[in-house]
Amino acid sequence: MARESVEERLVGLADVVIEAAKKKKDPAFDIPVRALSNVAFNEKRRIIEMKDATTERSFFNLGMAKKFMQTMLVADALAELQRAECTTSLREIYYRTKHTLRDSSENTFDDQAESDPVIEDLEVTLEALREELHVSAEGRGSIVGNITLVDDGDPIDCSKAGKSGHTVPSIVEEPGIRIKKCSADFVLLIEKSTQFNRLSEDKFWKRHNCILLTGNGQPPRGVRRLCRRIHDEWKKPVLVLVDNDPWGYYIYSVVKQGSINLAFESERMAIPDAKFIGLSSFDPEKHKMPRNLGIKLKDNDITRAKELLAYPWFQKKEWQKEIKHMLASGLKYELDALANKDFRYLTTGYLPRKLKDKDWLD
Amino acid sequence: MARESVEERLVGLADVVIEAAKKKKDPAFDIPVRALSNVAFNEKRRIIEMKDATTERSFFNLGMAKKFMQTMLVADALAELQRAECTTSLREIYYRTKHTLRDSSENTFDDQAESDPVIEDLEVTLEALREELHVSAEGRGSIVGNITLVDDGDPIDCSKAGKSGHTVPSIVEEPGIRIKKCSADFVLLIEKSTQFNRLSEDKFWKRHNCILLTGNGQPPRGVRRLCRRIHDEWKKPVLVLVDNDPWGYYIYSVVKQGSINLAFESERMAIPDAKFIGLSSFDPEKHKMPRNLGIKLKDNDITRAKELLAYPWFQKKEWQKEIKHMLASGLKYELDALANKDFRYLTTGYLPRKLKDKDWLD
Repeated sequence: MARESVEERLVGLADVVIEAAKKKKDPAFDIPVRALSNVAFNEKRRIIEMKDATTERSFFNLGMAKKFMQTMLVADALAELQRAECTTSLREIYYRTKHTLRDSSENTFDDQAESDPVIEDLEVTLEALREELHVSAEGRGSIVGNITLVDDGDPIDCSKAGKSGHTVPSIVEEPGIRIKKCSADFVLLIEKSTQFNRLSEDKFWKRHNCILLTGNGQPPRGVRRLCRRIHDEWKKPVLVLVDNDPWGYYIYSVVKQGSINLAFESERMAIPDAKFIGLSSFDPEKHKMPRNLGIKLKDNDITRAKELLAYPWFQKKEWQKEIKHMLASGLKYELDALANKDFRYLTTGYLPRKLKDKDWLD
Repeated sequence: MARESVEERLVGLADVVIEAAKKKKDPAFDIPVRALSNVAFNEKRRIIEMKDATTERSFFNLGMAKKFMQTMLVADALAELQRAECTTSLREIYYRTKHTLRDSSENTFDDQAESDPVIEDLEVTLEALREELHVSAEGRGSIVGNITLVDDGDPIDCSKAGKSGHTVPSIVEEPGIRIKKCSADFVLLIEKSTQFNRLSEDKFWKRHNCILLTGNGQPPRGVRRLCRRIHDEWKKPVLVLVDNDPWGYYIYSVVKQGSINLAFESERMAIPDAKFIGLSSFDPEKHKMPRNLGIKLKDNDITRAKELLAYPWFQKKEWQKEIKHMLASGLKYELDALANKDFRYLTTGYLPRKLKDKDWLD
C-alpha cells in the first residue's frame, strides 16, 4: 500500500464533512466495532479475524460531537505525518492535537486515553496498520543471524552485528526496512533477552543456521511484523521459545493467530505456521530438571490456563495435553531454570535435542 | 582489570575457608556496608562514593551460616562463569546455585531475592563491577551516530546502522566491546525512545556531528557505562535530555554522580562533567509552550523535588533555581509536548537553539 493511498484515505474523511456541508446534511461515517463480539477465529486461515459490525459516528449528535471533532483532529495530524514523511508516537499525537478551543476553557483532549482509541478507530476505518499511519508503538527488539536488512538505506548484515545485534525498531515497513538477503533456515523468536544473549554469545545461529530475534518480553509490534515478513517474503519457518507458563502460551498464540484486541491486524501480523518449541510442560521430565526449579502455579495462572484450554485455537489434542499437564503438575518453569544443569545447557543440550527430534507443537 | 584477576579474587574467597580449616578457626571475611550511612558525596571528585565501613560474615555463627554458604555457592558459580568465558543474568545465577541440601528438604536458595544481594556483596567485596563478574543486568539500548564500535570482533559503524541503530548490550566491557573510532563532537544521552527515534529519523546526528544514545527509560547499566567510556576514552562531552520532572532530574543526577544504592560503582559509571540540556523548567516559557501542555505536579512529585533540593549535588544556585521554578509553576512537562508546535520541533527548533546558546546546566 503506497503512502499516497493512506494520505488519500485520511483526506477522504475530511471530504465526508465537506460533502455533507454542501448538502446541508449531518456528516457521518462508519467505524468497525472493536470488541470481542466482533471477532472470530477463522479455522481455515487459522487467524483471529474481525467480523463486519460497524457503528456510526456523526457530528450532529450531542453524545458524539466531541468524539467526531477529535477524530477529525487526529486524522489531520496523521495526514500531516504522511506529508512530512515522519513517524511519531501515540503520545506525541496526543500533544500535537491538544489545544484549547477558542473563547472557551475546553481542551480538544484532556488525556492521551482520549486520543489513543481514536487512532485505533482510524486504523480499522481506513484499513491501515498503525505503522502505515506512521505511528510507532513502544518497545524495541534485537536481531542477529544469517540475514541482511536494509535500514533507511544502510545495509545491515546481521551475521556481522556483534553479540548484541541490530535494533529492531517499532516500525519495520517498506521502504524503511527491506529484507535484502536471508540464508538462514529458520527464525527463533525468543521471549526473553537472557536467552537471546546466551544464544547470541554462543553463536548458536551460526552452528544451526538461523536468525535470533527477541523483543525483551512479549514481542512488540515491530518484532512480530519483522518475523512475519521474514516468514512471508523468504518462506522461513518460525519457532517460538517462551517460558512454560500461561503467559508463554499466550505470547505464542498471539504470534501465531493474532490477538482478540487487535484482530484487525492478524491479517498482516499473525504467523499461523509458527511452532512452539518450548518450554513445554513435558520438558522438565524429558530434560531431568529437578522439581524444586518449578514455581507453584498461582490462582491467576490456573484461571488463565483454563481460559486458554477453552480458546478455539488451543483445541488440538496435543495442546490440550500440554496445558493440562501443566495444570496437573501444579508448576510452571522459566527458561532460566535450564541454567541449573549448566550455564550453556540451552545452547548445547536443550535446543539441539529439540531440533533433532522436531520436538515442537503446532 | 584482566579476567584472571577477577577469577583469582573469587578463588581467594575459597582460600579463606581452607586456610581457616587448616588452622581450625572460624572462616570469615569482611564485606563493605551497602547503606546510606556508608555513602558520601565527594565534592572534589563530584561523585557519590562509598565510605569504608565493613561487616564481618563468618561461618560459625547461627545467624550467618546459611548466608556464608550461599556466598560461597554464588562465588563458585561466578568463578565458573569466568572460566567458561560466558555471561549470564542474575536470575540464572539463582537457578544455577539452587539445589536441595543432601538428606534434607532445605534448599540452598528459595528465592532470587536471596541470591541478588549476595552478588552485590561480592561486587563490593572483590571490588569488581557486576559486568566484570559476567553478570548482565536487564535492559538494552540503542546507538547511532559518528562512532565505530567493535562488538565481539565485528566492526559496527554506527553512522551506517540505519534509523534504528545498533543494540547496546547490558555488558559493554573490553574485550567484548571496543570503541574503535569516534569523530563525533558530543554524546546526546536521551531518556526516551520517542525522541531518539525522532532525532535518528531526522539524521540530527549528521547535521550536529554527535552520537545519539538511549536506554528507553532510565538508562540501564550498559548504556551508562558505554556513555562513560566514550566520554573517558575519546574525551567527548555528554549532554543529557530528559523530561522536565523530578524523575528526569534524578536520571540526570545518576548519570552525573552515581546513585546512593550503588555508590560503589560511581567510580566507573559516573560522568561528573555531564550536562543537563533539558527539558528545563524555564523551557516552556522560552519556547512558548502553552500551559495546558503541562501536567499538574502530584504530591509525590513535590516531595521528590524537595528531596532533590536537599541533596549536596543539587546545591548549585542554578539548580536550586531550576527545581524551585518547577515547584512554583506546579507543572511538569514531557519532551513529547514539544510536538505540539510541530512534529519536528525538537530537531529543528528546540535542540539547535539550546546548542547555539549553550543553554544547559552543570
